[in-house]
This record gives sequence, structure tokens and C-alpha cells, in this order.
Amino acid sequence: MTQWVYRFGDGAAEGSAAMRDLLGGKGAGLAEMSNLGLPVPPGFTITTEVCAAYYAGDRRYPDGLADEVKSALKAVEDAVGAAFGDPAKPLLVSVRSGARASMPGMMDTILNLGLNDDTAEGLARQSGDARFAYDSYRRFIQMYADVVLGVDHHHFEELLQNHKTARGLTLDTELIADDWRELVEAYRTTVEKIVDAPFPDDVEDQLRGAIGAVFGSWMNQRAATYRRLHDIPETWGTAVNVQAMVFGNMGDDCATGVAFTRDPATGEKAIYGEYLINAQGEDVVAGIRTPWPLTLAAKHANGSPLPAMEEALPGVYADLVAVVGRLEGHYRDMQDVEFTVQRGKLWMLQTRAGKRTAQASVRIAVDMAGEELITESEALCRVDPASLDQLLHPTLDPEAPRTVLARGLPASPGAASGIAVFSADEAEDLAAQGKAVILVRAETSPEDIHGMHAARGILTSRGGMTSHAAVVARGMGRPCVCGARELRIDHHAGAFTAGGVTVKAGDVITIDGATGEVMQGAAPMIEPELSGEFATLMAWADGARALGIRANADTPADARTALEFGAEGIGLCRTEHMFFEADRIVAMREMIIAESPEARGAALAKILPMQRHDFAELFRIMAGRPVTIRLLDPPLHEFLPNSDAELAELAASTGEAFDSVRHRAAMLQEVNPMLGHRGCRLGISYPEIYEMQARAIFEAAAAVSAETGEAVTPEVMIPLIATRQEFDILKALIIAVAGRVEEETGAKLTFLVGTMIELPRAALRAGEIAEAAEFFSFGTNDLTQTTFGISRDDSASFLECYQRLGIFGRDPFVSIDVDGVGELVRIAVERGRAARPDLKLGICGEHGGDPDSIRFCQQVGLDYVSCSPYRVPIARLAAAQAALEGADEEIDAA
Amino acid sequence: MTQWVYRFGDGAAEGSAAMRDLLGGKGAGLAEMSNLGLPVPPGFTITTEVCAAYYAGDRRYPDGLADEVKSALKAVEDAVGAAFGDPAKPLLVSVRSGARASMPGMMDTILNLGLNDDTAEGLARQSGDARFAYDSYRRFIQMYADVVLGVDHHHFEELLQNHKTARGLTLDTELIADDWRELVEAYRTTVEKIVDAPFPDDVEDQLRGAIGAVFGSWMNQRAATYRRLHDIPETWGTAVNVQAMVFGNMGDDCATGVAFTRDPATGEKAIYGEYLINAQGEDVVAGIRTPWPLTLAAKHANGSPLPAMEEALPGVYADLVAVVGRLEGHYRDMQDVEFTVQRGKLWMLQTRAGKRTAQASVRIAVDMAGEELITESEALCRVDPASLDQLLHPTLDPEAPRTVLARGLPASPGAASGIAVFSADEAEDLAAQGKAVILVRAETSPEDIHGMHAARGILTSRGGMTSHAAVVARGMGRPCVCGARELRIDHHAGAFTAGGVTVKAGDVITIDGATGEVMQGAAPMIEPELSGEFATLMAWADGARALGIRANADTPADARTALEFGAEGIGLCRTEHMFFEADRIVAMREMIIAESPEARGAALAKILPMQRHDFAELFRIMAGRPVTIRLLDPPLHEFLPNSDAELAELAASTGEAFDSVRHRAAMLQEVNPMLGHRGCRLGISYPEIYEMQARAIFEAAAAVSAETGEAVTPEVMIPLIATRQEFDILKALIIAVAGRVEEETGAKLTFLVGTMIELPRAALRAGEIAEAAEFFSFGTNDLTQTTFGISRDDSASFLECYQRLGIFGRDPFVSIDVDGVGELVRIAVERGRAARPDLKLGICGEHGGDPDSIRFCQQVGLDYVSCSPYRVPIARLAAAQAALEGADEEIDAA
Repeated sequence: MTQWVYRFGDGAAEGSAAMRDLLGGKGAGLAEMSNLGLPVPPGFTITTEVCAAYYAGDRRYPDGLADEVKSALKAVEDAVGAAFGDPAKPLLVSVRSGARASMPGMMDTILNLGLNDDTAEGLARQSGDARFAYDSYRRFIQMYADVVLGVDHHHFEELLQNHKTARGLTLDTELIADDWRELVEAYRTTVEKIVDAPFPDDVEDQLRGAIGAVFGSWMNQRAATYRRLHDIPETWGTAVNVQAMVFGNMGDDCATGVAFTRDPATGEKAIYGEYLINAQGEDVVAGIRTPWPLTLAAKHANGSPLPAMEEALPGVYADLVAVVGRLEGHYRDMQDVEFTVQRGKLWMLQTRAGKRTAQASVRIAVDMAGEELITESEALCRVDPASLDQLLHPTLDPEAPRTVLARGLPASPGAASGIAVFSADEAEDLAAQGKAVILVRAETSPEDIHGMHAARGILTSRGGMTSHAAVVARGMGRPCVCGARELRIDHHAGAFTAGGVTVKAGDVITIDGATGEVMQGAAPMIEPELSGEFATLMAWADGARALGIRANADTPADARTALEFGAEGIGLCRTEHMFFEADRIVAMREMIIAESPEARGAALAKILPMQRHDFAELFRIMAGRPVTIRLLDPPLHEFLPNSDAELAELAASTGEAFDSVRHRAAMLQEVNPMLGHRGCRLGISYPEIYEMQARAIFEAAAAVSAETGEAVTPEVMIPLIATRQEFDILKALIIAVAGRVEEETGAKLTFLVGTMIELPRAALRAGEIAEAAEFFSFGTNDLTQTTFGISRDDSASFLECYQRLGIFGRDPFVSIDVDGVGELVRIAVERGRAARPDLKLGICGEHGGDPDSIRFCQQVGLDYVSCSPYRVPIARLAAAQAALEGADEEIDAA
Repeated sequence: MTQWVYRFGDGAAEGSAAMRDLLGGKGAGLAEMSNLGLPVPPGFTITTEVCAAYYAGDRRYPDGLADEVKSALKAVEDAVGAAFGDPAKPLLVSVRSGARASMPGMMDTILNLGLNDDTAEGLARQSGDARFAYDSYRRFIQMYADVVLGVDHHHFEELLQNHKTARGLTLDTELIADDWRELVEAYRTTVEKIVDAPFPDDVEDQLRGAIGAVFGSWMNQRAATYRRLHDIPETWGTAVNVQAMVFGNMGDDCATGVAFTRDPATGEKAIYGEYLINAQGEDVVAGIRTPWPLTLAAKHANGSPLPAMEEALPGVYADLVAVVGRLEGHYRDMQDVEFTVQRGKLWMLQTRAGKRTAQASVRIAVDMAGEELITESEALCRVDPASLDQLLHPTLDPEAPRTVLARGLPASPGAASGIAVFSADEAEDLAAQGKAVILVRAETSPEDIHGMHAARGILTSRGGMTSHAAVVARGMGRPCVCGARELRIDHHAGAFTAGGVTVKAGDVITIDGATGEVMQGAAPMIEPELSGEFATLMAWADGARALGIRANADTPADARTALEFGAEGIGLCRTEHMFFEADRIVAMREMIIAESPEARGAALAKILPMQRHDFAELFRIMAGRPVTIRLLDPPLHEFLPNSDAELAELAASTGEAFDSVRHRAAMLQEVNPMLGHRGCRLGISYPEIYEMQARAIFEAAAAVSAETGEAVTPEVMIPLIATRQEFDILKALIIAVAGRVEEETGAKLTFLVGTMIELPRAALRAGEIAEAAEFFSFGTNDLTQTTFGISRDDSASFLECYQRLGIFGRDPFVSIDVDGVGELVRIAVERGRAARPDLKLGICGEHGGDPDSIRFCQQVGLDYVSCSPYRVPIARLAAAQAALEGADEEIDAA
């Protein structure tokens, strides 16, 4: 017969930590602590299977449950020498939910269950503390009424406030027993009025009600949404923990507190926590009273006048230190515990792995490996790669107040304050004057790059996580909030309105790229600091990972940052960014409006030496590491000015008729530029452009190679290939240019010619393309756009709705869609490698810096990932974890 | 040892019709006629393998060829009793190329080879006709110099013209022998001057030169381009035919002509052709002399004063009738023959399947099946489905002169003349006044639909074969020329410039949607006529095909047209087209700018009765046939006006602030609308819209079903599904609406809920989608756009280049890309059917009307294709052919 109830108590338990699925996290922890012989108030766990059976059986409890609960309760009574509902020696219990994973939205806790008018009086007698008894009673009524009967807690807060006002009191601690007794009456009356039934006096009814409320909360809306979003099956169910109460509020030899085995903010190996003498658990966390420091060290560090537990309750403190030491050693992780001291005796109420900051996470993992508590591999798996972002960017002081005007997408991490400016030119001008600026645009385009570079942060009202603004900002390490749709920007007036406030050019705003918040005024920042432990962890990661890590870098500055963060090469150099600099854009525009190949050639000849110089510098910085250079990709109209005035200027400078320039500009406009005349299509239509770029690459490679005496092997990448024929035509062109450069310079060039795989057709035809291409780099931004038929620039308008409804678990532009886009990648890898076994495979979409996507890249067999420089550390760690997981799976499979 | 040369001659041949690959089309025909005992001048064919060997061997002829040619030539000399180069009895030969398929760009013919000063004199003596001999000689020099020596023929024409002017003559026939003799001298001198070498007098040299020229022309640029575009392998090579000359120009008992066994224009079963007495072959086709009718019937029909062959040469005519009768019976197809009569004797020079008009093609196929010359299945395969377009639309009189201003894509067949107008409103106004108008736009949008409907034809300067203009025009059966990029349109001024001409609003233009030509002024048209044979053929096609044929129809008029053309249902009803009518667009716009679901609901309530009415009418017309209705697909901004003035009007009519309306309109703008907030994404964000549409469908179905007593089973189609979750959410919504309508009306509804498969991800996830969807309709327009990453609206700018370079054989928006898009369709079919074996599968993209794509649909196992009403006959025939091919393959495989 199924066992529905598992007992635990002082020194022994029917369950253990291994039974987390059955007992839930809290129940398993209580059982484990009991087995370790730690002081745990006796109690029992009703298993998650009861919850499952309850819902499978049309909300009826399984047979036998009632009897099991009864006998488990009897055991608790025997252990503590009290009886449930007995006014003479009343047993009080807590009822708590506990699923496998902690889950917001579910019922949490009811304390002091078992109280009614009779047992409260008994408790007063027994404890000799009527104030304690009636304070406990009113707390119980409030909690029970709220979570079981659905009576909003504001009713009780009002009654309490009115009572205090009438009595001329301000603090709860000033209330005496009679105050609480009166309030209990008032509370009970209120409950009865609202639910139209008396508050239950029968303690068995109370317990049934509380258990039912826990199970009921498993199915409430918030919990169901959370489960759907986190892929938690409904069938898991929750457990219920019923446990004898211990009281931290029975006098000055009583206390309650929480402790961490290490500092959760810094990771320092020192007990950290807070407690209160003569208080019940929620007093510590509710912020009604200021909690006191646990240790003398913390007291001194903060200059606190409050007594540390170490001095106030030295014996119990020593017990606590011993207990948490055992727990950390046992669980081999930093623990977060709850405890209560009742009349000088320590009781443990919970233990779990403690939440920690990114900084603490790194330090604890590295320290524990140093202490040989865990292995280096375990240390690598203990740190969430995504959390490293916090270590690399300034963040907003979480304590500081803020006035949030609007909310957008958290597009590039870090926070920044500065004056709002509404054009890239203005951003550049003001930044040159030493001003901190935030560039505010409806959306950005390649024309805005100089302004984005000059700005401290970027804010747009349109575009998603992989819009132009977001991608460029991440690449530059600039904080960015995108798609803040509530913003009404008036670029002409130089102002935006949001949240009823109008922000004019020159007004200070703050953006938080980690939360997407847009705030009025400046907000205090915390600057990042990279610790020695960080470097240690990164070194371990490099030793463990199989994937190579490259960076997407377009400029020498990017390349240097990438190297500092540990990149092993450049996986994507977007040459178009080189065209936007002031001295080049003019030649570029001349090239675009040219009507003949000759005129185009003349304009390109002006750009050639500049590109050659750029490439040479990249090759020098990367010192022999691989550099993948993508030939021109964006449609030509992105390089043209928009206004008639600027077009007229262009016409004047080129000697063309204005009408003709305007016509050409109009002809280049596209309905769907993402699917337009771009990528290799430009190279096919205007071979002069790719010829110039190939020449710049090869001449630079020859020059740097001659300079350094070391081979430079550029990887020339053709974008947006859909057919083998396109690749063949352009590969022949590139090889022909290489031949000419070899002839002219006498250098012997080594290089690879490969392609982006960023269209579904290229993935499907990867076999034949790989016959000609020497490497593939998956451009999963565009591949996601085309596979889903979703423009990343336009997705903001429905993405939120899609995530809310659970259609997208995560934004597919942030984390690769393994089922759809992933299948295309898998197909391309299989077909590509079948045609060319040594095909080099990488990814250079934004997914290259996302840990889940990196795991996919490892599984599917890529050689490297390439991401923005600031995500390189994340990628290194994520790659290590993916490799370790892969190794585990192999061991499991063996 | 390989045989390089195959002889043929009067009554026997070494080759046959079956050896077309080896002998080329012409050589095989000559051999076959010889074997049939028909009078063929003796000769020989140098095989295509020689051509292959020639190029494989660095342009050297294979060993043994020279000897084989020599002995074959000897045999010809023996047969005709003449000797090559012998002044006494000179043998003259023709040299002609002949590949497997006739191929433009290759050398065609050299006649009279074997003439020099000596043999010409001999020929004059032997024939007793010096004029004939020297006329033949100068013809030979001209042809040989042109095609072998590269001397442009205008040199000779000039000399001839000068000679005539000097002599005061106008017609060639007025020249006497001495004139030709003098001209021969002048021709030879000119050749020597230009090529810096004397004209070859050695007849062996002449023959070698001519054979070399044929093989050389196989590799010339034009032939190479043609091969690449038609997927003809270079290795096929061409054959060379060397044949004894017979002369139609030795006197009045000589003649030359061409004949068709049936009328190639009408298909009538009657010999049709032209001839000339005392002439050489090219005189008939060169248009220098007006050719005479073959038959008395033709003479009378045309009221021609010229003598028919039937009366002028009755004996030879009777021989010809007998010969061509045997040839048609033998080849079981209409033949196109060339013949020469030399001194009263008929000689056959060529036979091949005759080219014919679409009308003739249909009639000949049906007649021949009636005559039991071929089977009905063969008859079905004899007609090119695409050619039927000519029968369904007015076409330009091919004889009429035309002034072509520009050329665009042939986007929708048929031709139309009318006055140019530059806005949809104007088009509607002027059409209402009874004027024929051509709507000229840079590109069209759904807002222009009323104007497109009112226009006789549509002309755009942007967009490809599946741009909005093209798709809508084909749907309406309106001729359309798209992407005429040379047009500079000034919509404000109401004028466009092209080819140096400015066309103002009100000027008459003509467009030819079959060729893409834009012409100045009106051009005469030929109206289509559907024959009884057409109906017969269609009935046979319906009996033979396996695929169902539906039409894409949005309006009652479309639906009626579709039924007339034989559609079996509606495969795609685009409901958005219903929103653009004047009375509805206002409510639609109110709906769009509404900020709350309630306001949206109120606006939708106004649209509901109109949509219901539309659907009811469609159901009535289709009388129980399936009707697939696609829920709203285009992004909402397509429905909003563009100008501030119109937005102000909208603001006024809805009582919203102008700023707020403008903001909303701006927010709806998208960078890539094709990949934006459209399709099912609208239904997810604004469920009210799909609820209203589902309600309109179900209420209409219930009403019509009650009216007629017959079940109406609408197929509700959800567009742009990318994930199973989207489909589940919207299917639940549709079923809920159906439930409410059933409750309200008491009707029992039957319906299907299915989806478009138009995104790569949907194709890949077809298995899970099919668990919920009852049918798939492949939207291959969008699937092609996303698989290739090419916007059909923007592809015009590089498509021409892509086709020229052979990257695209055919425009992938016109004929499905079997390798890429096709693989996704195949995957979706396999996965979909695996999940749901009775899944109904169709296609509703433009490819549904393309014969090659229909063949693919048959192979991949779809149930039906749906195309624009005007392509339904094409689809019926193409489906029949696909089914017959499939059956053949099964027989072959068995």
C-alpha cells in the first residue's frame, strides 16, 4: 500500500534528501536534518503523490490518508508531550507547502494552527505569557483567514491600526495581552461577517482546511502560469508539511532568525544572518522590526548598536555555528537556514541552498573547490553563466529609490545615467564636450552608430531583443533598453512623454538594461569589479570546455576587448560598420548612386585603402588568431541619407542631377529590407564591391604577414547564401582576386572561403554548399527570423503577449528555438559534414552568447561559438558546463 | 570502333528516328524519311559524339572521321552521279547543324557548298542556266562568308544594292547572269579584303570549314546561355548534316516550300503551307518574295491571285499530299516539312513536329484522338498547359506595330489598352464614366483594390511576379506588368517617363501581360474564343487527373468565374479583401485605432453582418462544394490611410485625438511587414477579430444550410502558424464560437479547422501541428519568401540578374523550388500524414496554377491545388498530365 505520510523529528525520519520528488524541497530538508541528528521539531510530510491522487480523483483524498495523518499527529503529540486541541497542553503546528522546486503563487505558511479560545487560554497559562498567547492567536487568525478563507489581510491591518490609534499607540510591541485579546475578538467577528460563517474552532477542521488550501493553491492561476512557463508538469504536485510549533516569542531566551553559511553578497566564508530576540519568524523578514546581526564581525563592520547573537546568546550561537557547519559540509553547498530558539534551545526549521549574487556565486564555487568540498567541475556547474553579466557592467544600486517612467526590453545589460539626446549627431557633440548622454530613438539604424558609441546608453521605443539597437549596444557593451512602447518620442521637438512625464533633450534619465526600466533623473550605480576567483573560474572553464569561443568584433577596440575577455578569435567582423565613419560614408554613397560599374569602381577605389587599413589592424591585434570577415551584408539604402536636403548635398558632391539621385534612392527603398537586395545578392549584382573587399582583406593579410613573419589566414565569409550557385560565383570571384594580389605582391596567401547559414534553404542545401564552402557560420538571428517568419525589429508588438500566453517559453531571438531553428541547424551540420568531414562549424548569431543555446551548439557538434565581446566570459563558462554535461551523459550512457 | 558518320539517302539509311540523341533532330528525321522510302536527297550525318570528342580532345577531330566523311561523300557522289569539285558534273551539298533539341544561336545552314569559279561554270553548262549557277554561287559566298568567316552579311547587301542602283533595277529577279557573275567577283574581293585571305576555292577546304563552323557554334555565347537556361548539358553536342543539294531554282518546273499537315493557327485538318516556283529555300522564309499558297482552298480563302501548287504543279502536289500524309501517320503528330521540287521531282529536306498556337494545339490533339491516331491520354499530354492562358485572355495582335516604352515582368496574362491613371480612386471614377483605364502605380497595396478592379490593366514599376499587384491581378484576370523599373513615376504630377517619352494621366498606353511590354498608344487585340475541343479536352483531363482543383476566390464574382472554369471548390478565400470596400473600411479603421477590447468589439460588431453576408453568398454560389476561408492575415497598418489629412478625418469620425490616432498609426508601422504582426499573431493579440470572423462564417453556414437544406461545411483556415501552441489557442477560440452559434441558432454545425503551412517552422513541426489541425494548405508564396529569405515585393531588383546568371532557372515565385521549398513541403506532408493519416492537403500559393509545380504536388501526394480562377483550366490539364506521368512511372517501375 502507498505510504502517504512520512514522519520526521528529533534525530530520525522516514524520508531523506534523496526523496525530494516525493516530499518536496522543504520536507526532504527537514527529513535530512532529522537523520543528521539535528534539532528539528517533530512533524510529518503529506507526499506530493497525495496531491496528484487528489486531482486525479476529482479532488478527493486517497483512502487511508486520514488515518495516516491521525497517527502521525499522535506521534508528534507524544514527542512534544502535548495534545492537539487540548487546552491543558495544547499542541500547535505549522502547515507549509513544499513542491519539488520552490514555486511562487502557492500557499506558503500557516503558523500556530491549533488555537481557539480554549487552547489560547491554555497556552497563556502554560507559557505564563498571555500576551504571547493572544499575539500568537491573532497571527493565526489573520494567516488562516487570508490563505484558507480568502479574507484579505488589509481588513486585519485596519483593525490593528484603528486599535492602536484609539489607544494612542504606534508600535506593536507597545500592545499588551488585553489589546491582542480584544483584537482576536474583532478579527473573528470580521471573518464571520465576510465569509458568513464562524471562524473554525475545531482544530481538526483547521488542519483539514489548511491542508486543503495547500493542495488548492497548486491549481491556482498564478501557480499554473508559473508551471507552464517553467515546464513544470502539473502531475508533480506539492507536498504539505505539518510540524510542531516552536516559539521564538516566548521571552528573552527565545529568538528566531535566518543564517547563511557564507556571505550571499560577497561569498566570504563567514556565517551571515539576522535574528530577533522574542519574535516569530515573519517578524524578521517582514521589516516591521529591524533585525539584529548574528555575528560580532557583522556588528562591527556595520557599526551596529544592536546586540549580536554571538554575544547575546553565545551558547545557542555556538550550537548554530556547529549545525550550519555540518549542513554545509553535508550538502556541499552554501546553505540558507531558518531557526528558532525556544527557551534557550535551538531548533532548525529549514535548510536549502542559499541564493547568492553573481560575485558570491563565483567566490563560493572557487573557495569550495579550494577547500576540496567540491571538485573543479562541480564549481564550474555551480555558477549560472548568465549571472556573470552582472560582474561585467555597472549596475543600479538596488537600495536606491527610483522613479520608473516606462519599461522596455532588457536589451543590453548594465545601467547608465545621462542627459537625453534625440539624434546621433547631438549625442556625439555633447559627448565630445564631456557630457554623459543617453541616446533616445524610435529605433536605430547603422547611421546612428557613431552616436551609439558616444552615448552611455541607448533607449528605443521600438524593436526587440535583437533589433539593431540591441545587437549593436551589446556588441559595444553599452546598456540598452529597447521597445519601450509607452514612450511617445517627438524627434523634432526633442522630447518624449512617458508615464505622464515629459522628458526634454538635456533632462537626465537613467536606464537599466538588466530590467528594462527607464527612470527619471540620475540613480546611484555600483561599479563592477573582477575578482581573482573570477579569473580562476575562467581558467578552469577553458580547461573543461570543448567549444572554441570567438567574439563578434568590427573594430580594433572591439577586438581588444574581446581578447581581454578571453576570446580565441573573431567569429564575425561586420565590414559594413566600417563604412559609416564620416570619411567613408561619402565615398560609399558615391558608389551607391553610381550608374555604371566604372563609376562604382572609382568610388570603391577610395574605400579600398581604408578597409585595408582596418583589416590590417584587426590582423595585428589578433596576432594569428582566426578572423572571420563577412562581406557587405546590409541593403545599400541603409547607407543613403533620408532627407531631401542631404540627398541634394550628395547630388552636389557627385555632380549628379538631384532628381536622378532621388530616383536612385527611391528605387533602392524596399518593402521588406530584411528579405531584400542584400548579402550575397549585392555581391552578385555588383561584383565590384566584393572584389574591393576581397582585395582589401588579401592585401592586408599579405602586409601583416610580411610585417610579422607569421601567416595570417583570413576566413572570408559570404552572407545570405541560399543556393550553391551563388556561392560558386562569389568563391570564384574571391579566388580570382587572391590570385591577382598574389601576383602583385609576390605573397603566398592562405585563406578560407565559407558562408553564413542563415536561410532555411541554405540549411537544407548544406550538403551541396559544403562541397564548395570551407566553413559554415550559423547566422541564427536571420535564421530565426526566416524560420519563424518574424522580423526581430517588429516582434516587440506581440512578443510580450506570446510570452504571457506561453507560446514562447523564451524569446527565440535570445535563446535558440531547438525544435524548429535547431532542427535546421542539425540538418545543416549533418549534411555539411557528410559532404566535407573537416567542415569548420560555428555560430555567430546572438545565440552564441546564450548559455542554453551554447549547450545546443555543443550537442549538435559545432566547433565554436562567437558572441559579443562582453559575453565571452559567459560563453566560456557555459561551454564548460555544456562539455561537462555532455561527458556526464556519456558516462550515463556507458 | 565508333561509327562517326551515318549515311542516309533515297530509300535507306543507317540511322532512324530512334537515334535522335546521336544524329540530332534533323539527322534522325532525314534517316527516318529515307527508311520510309520517301524521296530524300542522299547525304550523311556526322554524329553528336564527334562534337563531344572534338571538345573533349582539345578541338581535334577523332581519328577515322576524315576517312568516314570521305567514303560517305563518295557514296553521295555515286548516288547522284556527280563529283565534289568536278567542273564537269559538280556535286553541291548543304551543311546544316542539328542538335537533339533545336537551339537558337547555333549555325544553321550553308547551301550550295562545292562551288568555285570552275564548278560554277560547270554548273551553268550542265544546267543550261548561267543565271541559276551564278545566283547559287553568290548565295553560297554570302552564307559561307557570314557563318564560317565571320563577314557580316550587310557588306553583301550593300554591294547588291549598289549594283542594282547603278543598273537602275529594283528587284533581284530583274538581274541577269552577268549581274550575278559581276557580284560574285565583288563578293570575293570584299571577303579577301576583310579576312585578309582569298575565299577558299578548294571544295574540301570549304567542307572542312563548314563542319568546323557548326561545331564551333555549339560553344558560342548565345548557345551556351541557352543551354544553361534550359538545362541542356554541354556534353550533348550537335550533329552536322551534309546532303546533296537539290535545286528549286532551276526553272519553272522547280519549286521549294514548307508545309504543315494541319493548320498551325487553327488546327484544322488540312494541308497548310507556302511555296515558290523557281526559288531556293530561304526565299520562302526571307520575305523577299511573297510566297504562294499550297492549296486551292487557301487560295480561295484568302482571295489570292497567286497560283496554288495544287493547280500549278498538280502531280507533284499529289505526291506531297501522299508523303505528308504518311509522315503524320508515322509520327502520329502534326508535321512541319520542307521540300524542294527539282525539275518536276519532289524531294523532302526535313520533317519535324510542327509548332502551333494554343488553339491549334487543343484542336489537333482532340481531333487526332477522334481519328484514333493517338489515345486520349496522349492527347492530354500534347497540349502545353501554360499555353491555355492564350485562350483565356485577349492577346495583342502579333502582326500589329508597337512602340515599346519599357519592359517589366509578365505578371498576369492578357493585353489591355487604356488611359493611364495614377490613383485607384481616379481609376474607379473614370471607369465609372465608361473609360478604359490602366492603373499605373509604383506598387499596389490592398487600398488600391477597387482601382485595380475598375482598371483594364495594371502597371507597376516595382515588385515581382508575386507582388501584391501581380497576385491580385491574376486573381481578377486583369493583365498586369510588374516591376517595370525603367518607369519613373511621379504620382503627384500624374505622369511617368520611360524610354524618353513622358506619359501623362489621360494618355493612352497598352500593356502586354504575357510579354511584360509597355507600349505607347493603343494596339489592336485578338479576343479569345473557347472551342468545343477545349471543353472536350478539359473533360478528358478531369477524367485523368487525381488532384482536386480549387480556386482562390474572395468575392462572389471570383467564385462564379471559378465555377465556370471548372473549379471544384474554393481553396483560399482571403477575407481581408472584404474589408476594403468603402462601407467597411471605416469600421475596420475604427477597430484598428481602438485602444480597448470593448471599443474594438463595437467596431467589429459593425463589420460582422457584412462579413456574414459575404460568406453566405459564397456558400450559396459554391452549393455544397468546399470553401476554405482564411482568417485575417495582413498587418493592420495596411488598412490605415497614409496621409495626415486622412488620419485627421479618421480622428474626427471616431472622436479620438488626432495625435493619438497618428501615434497609433505610427506604432503600427513595421520595418518588415511581411515578417511582422500579421496572420495568426493578430488573432492571438486581438482575439475579438477572429471571434467576429468565426462567428460570421458559422452564422452564414447555419443560415445557408437552413435555406438549402444541405450541409455547408466551411474549412476555417488559420494563417501564419509557426507553433502548435498558436494553433491550439485559436482552434479553441473557433470551436468556442461555433458552440455559441449552435446554441443561439439551434443549428448543428459541421466544419474543419486547419492551417496554412507557410513558414519553415510550421513545415518542420507539421507532426505536432497535424495532431490538432484537420487540414494543411501550403502557402508556398510566403514559404518561398521565408525559405529563400527573399521578399517577393523586392526581388525584382536582382531577379533578372539571377536568372541571367542561371542562379535561378525559373523564378521560384512562379515555379516551386523543388530542392528547397519542396523539401519543406515533403517534410510537412510526411510528418503531417504520420500524425493524422486522413489529413487533407492542398496548396493555395501562386504555384497552384503552375504546371511544373502541379507535377510536384502530385508527386508529393497532395489532395488538391488551388489557383486563381483564370488558371483553373491550366491546373486541370497539368494535373491530368501529372497523373498520367505518375502512372507511366509506376508502369516503368513495375
